[in-house]
Amino acid sequence: MDLNNISSPSFLKELNTKQLRDLSYDIRKFLIEKCSNTGGHIGPNLGVVELTIALHRAFNSPKDKLLFDVGHQAYVHKILTGRASEFDTLRQYKGLSGFPKRIESEHDVWETGHSSTSLSAAMGMAAARDVKGEHHYIVPIIGDGALTGGMALEALNHIGHKKTNMIVILNDNEMSIAPNVGAVHNILGRLRTASPYNRVKDDLEMLLKKIPAVGGKLAATAERVKDSLKYLLVSGIFFEELGFTYLGPIDGHNFEMLEETLQNAKKIQGPVIIHVVTKKGKGYLPAENDTIGTWHGTGPYKIETGDFVKSTTSAPGWSKLIADTVTRIAREDDRVVAITPAMPVGSKLEGFAKEFPNRFYDVGIAEQHAATMAAGMAASGIKPFLAIYSTFLQRAYDQMLHDICRQNLNVFIGIDRAGLVGADGETHQGVFDIAFLRHMPNIVIMMPKDENEGQHMVKTALDYEDGPIALRYPRGNGLGVPMDKELHDIPIGTWEVLQEGVDAAIVTFGTTIPLAKNAANILSAKGIQTEIINARFIKPMDEKMLHRLMQSGKPILTIEEAMLEGGFGSAVLEFANDHGYSTDRIARMGIPDIFVEHGSVDLLLRDLHITDEEAVNRVERLIAKKSKKQAGLKA
Amino acid sequence: MDLNNISSPSFLKELNTKQLRDLSYDIRKFLIEKCSNTGGHIGPNLGVVELTIALHRAFNSPKDKLLFDVGHQAYVHKILTGRASEFDTLRQYKGLSGFPKRIESEHDVWETGHSSTSLSAAMGMAAARDVKGEHHYIVPIIGDGALTGGMALEALNHIGHKKTNMIVILNDNEMSIAPNVGAVHNILGRLRTASPYNRVKDDLEMLLKKIPAVGGKLAATAERVKDSLKYLLVSGIFFEELGFTYLGPIDGHNFEMLEETLQNAKKIQGPVIIHVVTKKGKGYLPAENDTIGTWHGTGPYKIETGDFVKSTTSAPGWSKLIADTVTRIAREDDRVVAITPAMPVGSKLEGFAKEFPNRFYDVGIAEQHAATMAAGMAASGIKPFLAIYSTFLQRAYDQMLHDICRQNLNVFIGIDRAGLVGADGETHQGVFDIAFLRHMPNIVIMMPKDENEGQHMVKTALDYEDGPIALRYPRGNGLGVPMDKELHDIPIGTWEVLQEGVDAAIVTFGTTIPLAKNAANILSAKGIQTEIINARFIKPMDEKMLHRLMQSGKPILTIEEAMLEGGFGSAVLEFANDHGYSTDRIARMGIPDIFVEHGSVDLLLRDLHITDEEAVNRVERLIAKKSKKQAGLKA
Repeated sequence: MDLNNISSPSFLKELNTKQLRDLSYDIRKFLIEKCSNTGGHIGPNLGVVELTIALHRAFNSPKDKLLFDVGHQAYVHKILTGRASEFDTLRQYKGLSGFPKRIESEHDVWETGHSSTSLSAAMGMAAARDVKGEHHYIVPIIGDGALTGGMALEALNHIGHKKTNMIVILNDNEMSIAPNVGAVHNILGRLRTASPYNRVKDDLEMLLKKIPAVGGKLAATAERVKDSLKYLLVSGIFFEELGFTYLGPIDGHNFEMLEETLQNAKKIQGPVIIHVVTKKGKGYLPAENDTIGTWHGTGPYKIETGDFVKSTTSAPGWSKLIADTVTRIAREDDRVVAITPAMPVGSKLEGFAKEFPNRFYDVGIAEQHAATMAAGMAASGIKPFLAIYSTFLQRAYDQMLHDICRQNLNVFIGIDRAGLVGADGETHQGVFDIAFLRHMPNIVIMMPKDENEGQHMVKTALDYEDGPIALRYPRGNGLGVPMDKELHDIPIGTWEVLQEGVDAAIVTFGTTIPLAKNAANILSAKGIQTEIINARFIKPMDEKMLHRLMQSGKPILTIEEAMLEGGFGSAVLEFANDHGYSTDRIARMGIPDIFVEHGSVDLLLRDLHITDEEAVNRVERLIAKKSKKQAGLKA
Repeated sequence: MDLNNISSPSFLKELNTKQLRDLSYDIRKFLIEKCSNTGGHIGPNLGVVELTIALHRAFNSPKDKLLFDVGHQAYVHKILTGRASEFDTLRQYKGLSGFPKRIESEHDVWETGHSSTSLSAAMGMAAARDVKGEHHYIVPIIGDGALTGGMALEALNHIGHKKTNMIVILNDNEMSIAPNVGAVHNILGRLRTASPYNRVKDDLEMLLKKIPAVGGKLAATAERVKDSLKYLLVSGIFFEELGFTYLGPIDGHNFEMLEETLQNAKKIQGPVIIHVVTKKGKGYLPAENDTIGTWHGTGPYKIETGDFVKSTTSAPGWSKLIADTVTRIAREDDRVVAITPAMPVGSKLEGFAKEFPNRFYDVGIAEQHAATMAAGMAASGIKPFLAIYSTFLQRAYDQMLHDICRQNLNVFIGIDRAGLVGADGETHQGVFDIAFLRHMPNIVIMMPKDENEGQHMVKTALDYEDGPIALRYPRGNGLGVPMDKELHDIPIGTWEVLQEGVDAAIVTFGTTIPLAKNAANILSAKGIQTEIINARFIKPMDEKMLHRLMQSGKPILTIEEAMLEGGFGSAVLEFANDHGYSTDRIARMGIPDIFVEHGSVDLLLRDLHITDEEAVNRVERLIAKKSKKQAGLKA
C-alpha cells in the first residue's frame, strides 16, 4: 500500500494477518529506502515493525498512551500515525524529528531522546489517570539496554510496589546500541532460552501429582516448596519479585503471538511486563548481520551493498583521535583505564578494549555509575578516562559535583559530542556542559583548537595529578592539520594568541576558531586588525592574558557554541567585574535561552547568529562604541 | 573503657564477646550523651554499633576498604579509628564532620553525604585493585533505603555481571530516613521473615528424597524443578539473579552470627551480599520507638525524656509553611498532588499525605524517577508539587533539563534547604541550584523574602500554566511576619522595592534580605541612602526594574547565598552587557569557587564574607569608584 495515504492507525484493526505481513514488508522497504538517503536509526526501527503494528491494533492511541523509550525506534509509529510523507526531511533542518515530538502528532504523548525515562513518565501518567478516575492503558516500550539505566530501575521499584496498572513492553533485541552488558542482561538471556509458558504448565501439573504430601516437621519447608513452584510457572522471577506479572518471552515478529499476549495483558490487574524478543535490523541483511552496533544509527548508505556513503573529509574523527591517543599513552602508563556507559562504538574505544581488555569497562547505560566508578578508581591511584557524550554527562551532574569534584579526584572526563550535534536535535545538543560544570570547584575544562592540540590535551589530562580534568571535543572530524609525533603537556590555564591584532580581540575555543579566523579576515580587509585568542582552557582561564587584554582597552568578543547563560562569556564578564575592568567593550556570542532543534550544524549556527558575519558586525559595533566613547571623553 | 584512648581498631581483635558487649554499651552511652548536646544522626549510628565493631574485627582497615554509603552512620567507625575525643565538636564549625572525610583519617577511604554512591565507588576500587594485582577486601556498607537509588541499582547490575570480588553489607533497618517504600523493600521484607538458611537446607534434603524420579516427556521440566529448588536454599533470589551470593538474613546485633557470616563471606569468590537486619536507634528507647524517622537526625535533646530542645523561634518552619500551603490549595484544586523522594518528614508532607493519601507519592530515594514521574503527571494535566532538597535536586539535573524544561511541563518544584544548610556540611549545601537551573530554558525560579511571600508564591506556582516553576526556600524557620489570610498570585518576573534610596541599590533575595537591611541601616547612618530590591524572581528577572536601576547610574550590589560562578549576580552582569550598560558600578557578593564545609550558617557566612559589614564596604567602594570616575570625567 501507499504509506503516504495513512492518516491514522485505526485502519490496522481491519487487516488480516496476510495484509499485516504485506504492510510490514512495505514499511521495511520504505524505511530502508528513506534512511539510505537521510540516514537515521534504521536498525532499531526495522526491529519493531510488527511490534508497533500490533501495539496500534491492540490499543487505541492517543487515548491509550504509547511511550517510546529513547524514542529513536518511533519511525514505524510515525508512519502509522500519518507522517510517512515527511520522511524525506527526516532529522533535517525544519524537517521530521528523529524522535517523538508532541507538536508533530497527538499520538506522540511523551518526548524522549535520552534513555530510561519512559517508565517514570508512564508511572506519572498512570498516577494522573488514577487521580482523575480515567480508564485507559499506559504502554511504555523500553529496550533491554535502557531498562538498566538507573532511573528505569528506580521506576520498576516504585511501580511494582504500587501495583499500578500498566503494560510495559520490554523490547529485547540483545543490544542497546552496542551489545549489552550487565546482570539484568544475563537474566534476559536465560529467559530467552527458557521454555515458553504453556508447555511447562502442562508438564508441571503432571509432576505436581507425583510429589508426596508432606506434613509435621516439614510443614514450613513444604510451604516454601509450594512458593518455589511458582518459579516453574513464571520464568521472569526477577520481574515477579519486583511486583510485575511477567509474560514471555515471545517472538516480536509473530503477529499471532503478539496479539494473543497483548490481549492477555490487558486483562491482568497490576503492572505487566511483556518480554518481546526482536531482531535489530530485521529484513535488511547488512543491518541484521551487525553484531557491534554499526547499524544502530547511520548516515546515508547504498541499499544494494550496505556500504556507507563516505564523508569526503580525510581528517581523523574526533572520537577516534582522542580514544587512540588514550590508547597510545596507556601503552606506557599502566594506570590508564577507560570507562564508557554503553558507547564503545560511538566513542571509538574498540581499539582500547581489544588491546587492554582488563582495563576497559563498558558499564551499560549507567552514566551515574560510570562517573562514580571512575571516582572510586581515581581514589585508588588509577587514571580513568571516562568517555561520555556531553548530553549524557547531564545524567552524572551530581556524581561529577559530589563525588569527583568535591573529592578532587584525578578523573579524566572526555566530553564527546560537545557543542551542536545536528540531526539528533534538541535532546542531544551538547551545549550545556560548560554552564553546568563551570561552577564546580576544582575542575579543569579544556577544548582544543584542532586535533593536534587535542592529542596534546589528552597527554595533559593523563599527566595532571591535581584533580578532575575535562576535555571537550565535538562530533565529527578534525581539521586535517599535521600531527606532532611527540606528545607534550600544555600548561594548565594557558591560552594562546593565534593571530595578533591591535584593534580588537576575539576570544574563543574549539569549533568556533575557524569562524573567528574568517571574521578576522573580513575585518582585516576593512582595515581592522583583530587578535584571535585560543581560549583552550575554559576553566581556569588565563588570567594573565585576560589582564593584558582588558588593560589594553581593546574591544573583546567572546564566541562559544554553548549556552550563553552562565557560560564562557559570562566567566569573562565575571573576571572583568571581579578585577575592576569595564565590560563596556566586551560582547558575547553564543546560544540564547532556547532549546536548539535538529538540523545541520551549519544551518543551526546561522539561525543562532553564530556566524562570521555576525562576529564582524559585533566587532565593528564594539569599535564604534569605543570611538563614540573616546569622542565623548575628548569633547 | 575510655573511648578517648582508642587510637586504632586493631585492639578489637583481642576482645572476647563479653568485652565486645561492654564496648558496645560504652559506645552507645557515649553517642547518646554526645549527640544530646550536638545533635546528629543518632538513630542510624545506634543501629550499627555491633556491625561496625564486627567489620573492624573481620577486616584490616585501611588496607581493606570500608565504604559507608550516605556516611551519616560512620560515628562508631570514627570512634573506633581514634576520633572519640573530637565528638564534642561534631558537625560544628571546624569540628568533626558528620560524614567520612579523607582528611580526618586514613580509615575514611571514601567521602559521602548523598546516598547510593558506595557500590559504584566500591566497583571502582575493586577494579583498581584488580588492575594493580593487589589483594584486599572491598566492603561497602549500604542501607536498604540507599540500595534502591538508581545509581546503586546500576552498580549492582554491573558488579553482578563482572563477578567482581567484594562483600556488600546490606544494613537493613527497614527504614531509609522515613519508612521505606518500593518493591525491593518488599523483597527484603519477605526475606527477613524467611527461615534462616541452615534449617531449610536440612529439611530440604529430606524432602528431595521423596520426590519421585521423572523421565521421558517430563525431562525438561524436571530440570527446571531442580533449578527451582535453588530458590529453597537461597532465599535472596533477587540478588542471586543479579549475580551475587546472598547470605542472610542475620541479626546485626549478634556478634557470633556477624563474625561467622563475615568469615564465610571472605572465602566466597565473586560478589557477596550479606543481609544484616539492624534496629535503628537500638539501645535508646525514644529512638527505638520511632516509626516515622524523627530520630534519624536530630538537634540536641534531653537524654532522660527524649524531648528535643526546642528552638526559641516561634516562626513557622519553611518546609511546613510551604507544604501546608500546598495542602490548603489542594483542598480547592484536585489536580494538585505531592511527590517526595523519601523525605515526607523532612519536607513536612505528613499532613498532605494524611489528607490526600491517593494524591501523595513517596517514591523512595529516587530523585530521577521523582522528577520524571512529575513530568509525566504534568503531561497529563495534573499539577505536581515535587518537594526536593536543593542538594538532592542535583541528582535530577538531566530530568529537570531533558524531561521537564525541554517539554515545558507545569511541574512545581519546591527546592527545600536552598542555601547553606549548616551542620551537614559540604555534601549538603544547597548553593548550586541557581547556577545549574538558570541556563535551563523555560524555567521560572523564585525565592521569597519571608514566609508570607512564600505562601503567595505557592499559589503563584500552582496557578502558573506556562511551564516549570521552582520555589527555593531555606532550611530553618521564617521571620515570624504576619500572614495574609487570602492567597494571591505574584506577577511572574516582578521584583519589589523594599526600601527607596538614591545613593546605591542592593539587589538580593531570600535569606540575605535581612543582611541587606542591616547594611542599609549602617550606610544610612553614614549618610548613604540605599535602595533595597527584593529580586524574588531569579529567572526571569525584572527587566523593567533592571533598566531603571542601570539607567539611574546607581551603584548596584548583588548578594546571593549561592555560587557566584554562573549565579544570580552573573545574570545581572549578563543583562547589563546585553543591553549596553556599564558594569563598572556593579559588584557581586556570594560564594566563591570552593566547597563550603560544615558549621553554623552564621559562622560560614562570616567566613565567606557574606555579611552586612562586607556589604557596607562594597557599597562604599562602589560609590568611591563612581565619584572617582565622575571626577575624572570632569577633569
